[in-house]
Amino acid sequence: MVKIKIGAYDLLEKIRNKRPVVHHLTNWVTIYDCANIVKALGGSPVMAHAQEEVAQMAKIAAALVLNIGTLTVDFVEAMKIAALSANEKGIPVVLDVCGAGATQLRDQKSFELLDKVRIDIIKGNSSEIARISGELVRTRGVDAIKVDKNMIEVAKELARKRKCTVVITGKEDIVASEGKFYIVKNGDPLMARIVGTGCMATSVIGTFAAVERDLAYAAAAGLVCFEIAAECAAKSSSGPGTFKEKLFDYIFHLDKKTIDKMQKVEA
Amino acid sequence: MVKIKIGAYDLLEKIRNKRPVVHHLTNWVTIYDCANIVKALGGSPVMAHAQEEVAQMAKIAAALVLNIGTLTVDFVEAMKIAALSANEKGIPVVLDVCGAGATQLRDQKSFELLDKVRIDIIKGNSSEIARISGELVRTRGVDAIKVDKNMIEVAKELARKRKCTVVITGKEDIVASEGKFYIVKNGDPLMARIVGTGCMATSVIGTFAAVERDLAYAAAAGLVCFEIAAECAAKSSSGPGTFKEKLFDYIFHLDKKTIDKMQKVEA
Amino acid sequence: MVKIKIGAYDLLEKIRNKRPVVHHLTNWVTIYDCANIVKALGGSPVMAHAQEEVAQMAKIAAALVLNIGTLTVDFVEAMKIAALSANEKGIPVVLDVCGAGATQLRDQKSFELLDKVRIDIIKGNSSEIARISGELVRTRGVDAIKVDKNMIEVAKELARKRKCTVVITGKEDIVASEGKFYIVKNGDPLMARIVGTGCMATSVIGTFAAVERDLAYAAAAGLVCFEIAAECAAKSSSGPGTFKEKLFDYIFHLDKKTIDKMQKVEA
Repeated sequence: MVKIKIGAYDLLEKIRNKRPVVHHLTNWVTIYDCANIVKALGGSPVMAHAQEEVAQMAKIAAALVLNIGTLTVDFVEAMKIAALSANEKGIPVVLDVCGAGATQLRDQKSFELLDKVRIDIIKGNSSEIARISGELVRTRGVDAIKVDKNMIEVAKELARKRKCTVVITGKEDIVASEGKFYIVKNGDPLMARIVGTGCMATSVIGTFAAVERDLAYAAAAGLVCFEIAAECAAKSSSGPGTFKEKLFDYIFHLDKKTIDKMQKVEA
Repeated sequence: MVKIKIGAYDLLEKIRNKRPVVHHLTNWVTIYDCANIVKALGGSPVMAHAQEEVAQMAKIAAALVLNIGTLTVDFVEAMKIAALSANEKGIPVVLDVCGAGATQLRDQKSFELLDKVRIDIIKGNSSEIARISGELVRTRGVDAIKVDKNMIEVAKELARKRKCTVVITGKEDIVASEGKFYIVKNGDPLMARIVGTGCMATSVIGTFAAVERDLAYAAAAGLVCFEIAAECAAKSSSGPGTFKEKLFDYIFHLDKKTIDKMQKVEA
Repeated sequence: MVKIKIGAYDLLEKIRNKRPVVHHLTNWVTIYDCANIVKALGGSPVMAHAQEEVAQMAKIAAALVLNIGTLTVDFVEAMKIAALSANEKGIPVVLDVCGAGATQLRDQKSFELLDKVRIDIIKGNSSEIARISGELVRTRGVDAIKVDKNMIEVAKELARKRKCTVVITGKEDIVASEGKFYIVKNGDPLMARIVGTGCMATSVIGTFAAVERDLAYAAAAGLVCFEIAAECAAKSSSGPGTFKEKLFDYIFHLDKKTIDKMQKVEA
């Protein structure tokens, strides 16, 4: 592992210029934050979940973000339709396996999605990804619990097995794909003290994946930008409430100098 | 077109005194913002979408706001029931054709609503309203795209055809009804950089329509108040996150002097 | 009635140490606020409503919060399944009868829940609780209307009849259970000027109930903490928008000294 510099700003610039449409089928808790973070980045979020329209909406989009945080059986059916349409068009599909390990429904539906459609990026915290990898962890609701196994190996294995990019967020984020590997060490503890950072990170990754074909690189770049903004926001806020608002301000104004100076990436 | 002054503050005062109940069947992304902006204005928002109760809830209300941003087939059925109840009571029904043009479902359901119930105010951005007018535009998700046709004519034609008030929001807002016409030139570019301003504008219009029978006048007055608050908020914020919070602060404190001084209306 | 001091901080400390999982089936308007207030307190919120998983999710939790604010028939079925599972595990179930009195569906479903599962804490504003007590009040949407009857007696009667704890929030909050009784006089008028304070109060009560078996005491302690934070937030904000963000900041940082000094409780 060596420190490297990645061109995260170049991708951010691309987003700001191209304004990619990012279609979401996400959870009802953080849906507003997910939409807003894409907008603050410069993208164009669209949320649509009716089975009758998701295929068509995905065709307008440059990336598709799925998040099972408040899943129902019908909602996952809509996800499948949207994902098949996205697969057909060839746009990246990101799946946040939010809460995997907490209930059988979440496990079963996560595997169903992974088996029936092409998922390009799987994203979760350490316990969720461990569960998706076949480990018998049990999560505690939607918050990560400690997982003993070396998560770097878990990520690499899962990426190989599923032929996709795997992102494990946490104090240090792991991004693995076949042949590529990054660790992102940016971020601030306040991120774990509000609801929505995990979901927003997924939407950020989806937005970066909309403008860059190297999905591991896109994911790492997205996390770098999001977490640098979080570091800046934490410094200028008095708690989780003001932190969240400042996060949008900082991501909106993020510039090349700040990104180049603050990024902490290893590969 | 000449500059005019409208009594927007008088209507705001009426809202603050009467505290009208504004019933919403709106989208899941911005539902919280919609409720909060009505509350900040002084109204009493209520969100209810179960087919079993919407007719009764509409009967308590002074206006009904419909927004198809995250529509499903069932949800639109509930909208119809609520709207028929509102029609029966004689309260204004506002329809935000959010995302019309993006999918066939949105087009079809927008037309279904317009055909089967009485819609008093149709509201959308330029591409959405163009689509509702029968133009073959295709929107880009939920964000407006450039529409060549003279939007003022589109608004007037649609108002005539549907015998209702038409509101097209954008850099300059167009409000048209049979025999009435306004352009509102207030607002700030930051409004387009957060999610929810379009939906909130619809809720604001619904709240003003709850206290004023001249619906074009109510819509123009609502937009004036909303957008003046946005101008003030933009001046005192450091980005889209803080902008949104300040928007609620300013709308809550909006006074006659500020409205009279800052309003930019033509007719 | 005499002024007393309660050990609210000790319970807050317990929450911060134990990080209890609080399972919600709540309304779509304020779901994000509910999740965030639990998180800011130190708890671990989880939102899950699929009938296939709610029983299992409730088993992971230390408390269950139900809120009928945007109920549907199916959603209430999921509530029943979750509540039965919570009853079986022996964790407290809190029911916010949001909007009871506004429609027959809300009344009917509130009574159905109260009759078919064990509800440990019923919470509402004065008109909602009056309705649940069998009074023929009609609420105005979801905002409280004046109820003539002595609400203290209503609360005590309902607590006796339903063998549970009853919380009536308002300018002064009433907490009653068989043999216990508190009045909490903290809070600020700005709380009524944003959407979500009622729902958040319910989530706060659920979080305190997750760590304390004396549910009336837990409810009073939760309200004390929430409303002291609101008083602090009101002092440092310029309107409802900034108030809401500051509320999260203050609840996150709430300390023993502030709670002990500011609390206004009678028993």
